[in-house]
Amino acid sequence: MATPFPLPDPMRRALDLARAAEQAGEVPIGAVVTLDGRIIGEGENRNRRDNDPTAHAEMVAIRAAAAHLKDFRLTGCDLWVTLEPCPMCAGALSHARIARLYYAAADPKGGAIEQGPRLFTQPQCLHRPEVYGGIAETEASALLRDFFLARR
Amino acid sequence: MATPFPLPDPMRRALDLARAAEQAGEVPIGAVVTLDGRIIGEGENRNRRDNDPTAHAEMVAIRAAAAHLKDFRLTGCDLWVTLEPCPMCAGALSHARIARLYYAAADPKGGAIEQGPRLFTQPQCLHRPEVYGGIAETEASALLRDFFLARR
Repeated sequence: MATPFPLPDPMRRALDLARAAEQAGEVPIGAVVTLDGRIIGEGENRNRRDNDPTAHAEMVAIRAAAAHLKDFRLTGCDLWVTLEPCPMCAGALSHARIARLYYAAADPKGGAIEQGPRLFTQPQCLHRPEVYGGIAETEASALLRDFFLARR
Repeated sequence: MATPFPLPDPMRRALDLARAAEQAGEVPIGAVVTLDGRIIGEGENRNRRDNDPTAHAEMVAIRAAAAHLKDFRLTGCDLWVTLEPCPMCAGALSHARIARLYYAAADPKGGAIEQGPRLFTQPQCLHRPEVYGGIAETEASALLRDFFLARR
């Protein structure tokens, strides 16, 4: 079932980036950072292409946005991503002071937001974004499922 | 009290990198990645210099080592760092398949290895490095304490 309302533009763009990652042989995950509704950083999974274990979509988008703003904090910025962030990316979101996190599919295997370590609920966590999950969940889940089925 | 045995060379180098970070006005943390005892990647905290919220010493060292090996996995490699890794860096260590983690000072405020979320003990965690803490703890703690005292 498709999402019963028009997708927000940033999530639509994140899905396009996920498809681009798939075309490049990477796990299909995409992310964008917005400020006042405008995209200021984009990323897709690039682990294999860049020989970089840290190059998840969120990390690439955060680094691009920070370079764009010439600031190591993305105060007031939002991040949109097609899959629930892992511990590495959740930690980076917190360090970057991301205001709101919007994600599509939940990740029972690797997610760190609403399952597993639930990093933003840890007493140590210094900055907790607002979290909105499930936007475009159907589309994002289908992309990942098809990718992993094709590789079995 | 100084560590009562000669410091391993990789931790000595990580401490030198931490001091270099301090000279550059960054939080004094350094890290190296070794393979068969040889350093193949180095990093120091570069958040402010690089406008990059992800540029912790461990992340910089991991990315350098992966670029050197032209592989997004650092299988069989060890990481040496002057402070207990945070959730972001612990997640990256796991993604990179680091075999052994050696760290100096514990970090009650931000550490994710032996306190807080204890990421490597989470059932979700797919790869757990062996962990050795407390090497050069005195030297590393003094560096950080002096840095933060000077900035009060």
